[in-house]
Amino acid sequence: MSELVGPVEVVGVGLLGTSIGLACRRAGLEVLLTDVSSEHVRTASGLGAGRARTPEDRPQLVVVAVPPDLLGDVIATALAGSDAVVTDVGSVKSGPLAAVAGVPGTERYVGSHPMAGSERSGPLAGSASLFDGRPWAITPHPGSAAAAVELVEELVRLCGAVPVWLTPDEHDRAVARTSHVPHLVASLMAARLADGPENHLALSGQGVRDVTRVAAGDPRLYGQIVSANAEAVLALLGEVRAELDRFIEAVGAGDRAALEGLLEQGVAGTRAIPGKHGGPVRPMRSVWVSVPDHPGELARLFADTVASEVNIEDIRIDHDPGRPVGLVELVVDERRAEHLLTSLESRDWVTHR
Amino acid sequence: MSELVGPVEVVGVGLLGTSIGLACRRAGLEVLLTDVSSEHVRTASGLGAGRARTPEDRPQLVVVAVPPDLLGDVIATALAGSDAVVTDVGSVKSGPLAAVAGVPGTERYVGSHPMAGSERSGPLAGSASLFDGRPWAITPHPGSAAAAVELVEELVRLCGAVPVWLTPDEHDRAVARTSHVPHLVASLMAARLADGPENHLALSGQGVRDVTRVAAGDPRLYGQIVSANAEAVLALLGEVRAELDRFIEAVGAGDRAALEGLLEQGVAGTRAIPGKHGGPVRPMRSVWVSVPDHPGELARLFADTVASEVNIEDIRIDHDPGRPVGLVELVVDERRAEHLLTSLESRDWVTHR
Repeated sequence: MSELVGPVEVVGVGLLGTSIGLACRRAGLEVLLTDVSSEHVRTASGLGAGRARTPEDRPQLVVVAVPPDLLGDVIATALAGSDAVVTDVGSVKSGPLAAVAGVPGTERYVGSHPMAGSERSGPLAGSASLFDGRPWAITPHPGSAAAAVELVEELVRLCGAVPVWLTPDEHDRAVARTSHVPHLVASLMAARLADGPENHLALSGQGVRDVTRVAAGDPRLYGQIVSANAEAVLALLGEVRAELDRFIEAVGAGDRAALEGLLEQGVAGTRAIPGKHGGPVRPMRSVWVSVPDHPGELARLFADTVASEVNIEDIRIDHDPGRPVGLVELVVDERRAEHLLTSLESRDWVTHR
Repeated sequence: MSELVGPVEVVGVGLLGTSIGLACRRAGLEVLLTDVSSEHVRTASGLGAGRARTPEDRPQLVVVAVPPDLLGDVIATALAGSDAVVTDVGSVKSGPLAAVAGVPGTERYVGSHPMAGSERSGPLAGSASLFDGRPWAITPHPGSAAAAVELVEELVRLCGAVPVWLTPDEHDRAVARTSHVPHLVASLMAARLADGPENHLALSGQGVRDVTRVAAGDPRLYGQIVSANAEAVLALLGEVRAELDRFIEAVGAGDRAALEGLLEQGVAGTRAIPGKHGGPVRPMRSVWVSVPDHPGELARLFADTVASEVNIEDIRIDHDPGRPVGLVELVVDERRAEHLLTSLESRDWVTHR
């Protein structure tokens, strides 16, 4: 078991980077700050998020928190510049991974993505509690070393977040659905407000404010994010368009039953969001799987679990460097455990009931 | 000047009706409750929202708070059954007005619509403070008597709401933009969540929850509301579709500049919502207009003000039953006052600077 002892280097000291620095300092770790803006570094230092990195520093873990367009280059530089484990907190995961494919040291790279943010940006908006209870995706690639995955998981837990395990491709499809397309939909609705007569907007209630709130986000940043995830976003935008056409047809034809049916699907969607209605915590069950201790096996297990469409609530890796096989504990909804076991067994995994 | 002294009858004792009853009782008015469900009446009475109406009661003001499909019939019945002023709190205003056209007593009808609600429904969800600080549209028709308009305005203020003056048609176009189409857009986005693999939704953050929250509303109720406002809704859905096609084209072509331009329009839309950013109260200025004291003139003034695209923040009607001309004070944004004066003068109104 690797242990996160620091130093942790944060590259890119904006909202996320500063917040990670603050959370690591809270846990007593040394934090090194790097940014093209020395003012950002000074501001974050002043807030207690760490100190400027010097050439002599040897980080154990590098967290890359730069804008999406720069991720691939900065991750590759971090891998080449030290023997540290490297993660990033970018909103899209397959692009940066492709950018570092073949770079020496990729086994030390494990992507990640905290589902936390703010309409504010910059180091002054940072907070050690930004990630409390938020999902934080960890997206190992087939070559990720188990020790590197563990170190990133430790960072996630130290920040108070809840790890969610996904392959990079699955992650990108997931955030297209839960973040990028909702942002575009909010934006196209918000644009209709700017079109309307001023006095009409006096009737705006909480509903339209909620629907459009995220559309206030920085167009340059979201332009980068959406462009980096164009394929998954386009597939879903096509589905949104088909659904919109069904609404237009139902309203135009006065087909009340069809309209209610479409609205029912929307209700079902709001209920599908986990924890949405603050219900009781569901009973969980652990599923143990034997995993050969060499690169790619852990990622293959994640991929097969994802393919089983079972949500992993928690994961513990119990491996002993002296043994050729590790044991992975997957914690899942009790009602989905049997399905997951059957599905993994059909894919030739050795499970322990 | 009419004075609201009660009794106030509330027909339809759900969330809105019960809340209005509670607010009127708080102000010391007698409240009479009517509902097809005697259990709803008992529940609302138990909460202190009023007492069951008896045949001997003579309300001064009837507030119709029944589902959209029933509005026209219940308003017509209320007008025929007494000499009370009648208002309704339905989400669409031109349909009920058409339904009561030609009914004796329509001069006593003034539509209205509070922009308040809750995902909860029924009398138990009622609250005297539901309307505090919320916009409440008042939509006189050309035949509405000034005294009736004033009585409804008193109800709105007594409930703690902010009156917003619009013609019925303008109101319906306004709520299509600020409420009905946002609801449909939220619903079609939410439906995409129900489609997705369960484990993808673990990444749901506050953004997608906000975008889709209103889609949890009752499909039957929203089916009625949207159907009653089909024309205005369809026009805007067409614009949403055109905007969606522009997004699909920009993302598909990798045209970052076009994408950022579309996102900028969304940002502008979020800024167009009044009070969105909690900025300082804008300086106001009063514009006085002479209005002949006969039916239709007040409505014509509203229509012309609406056509000037100036948002009326407040209105005061100062008329003396002995004089043929009343004075109406329109309170508007200081920066829009000159525009409104010029616009009204060009439409042959006598203004007082």
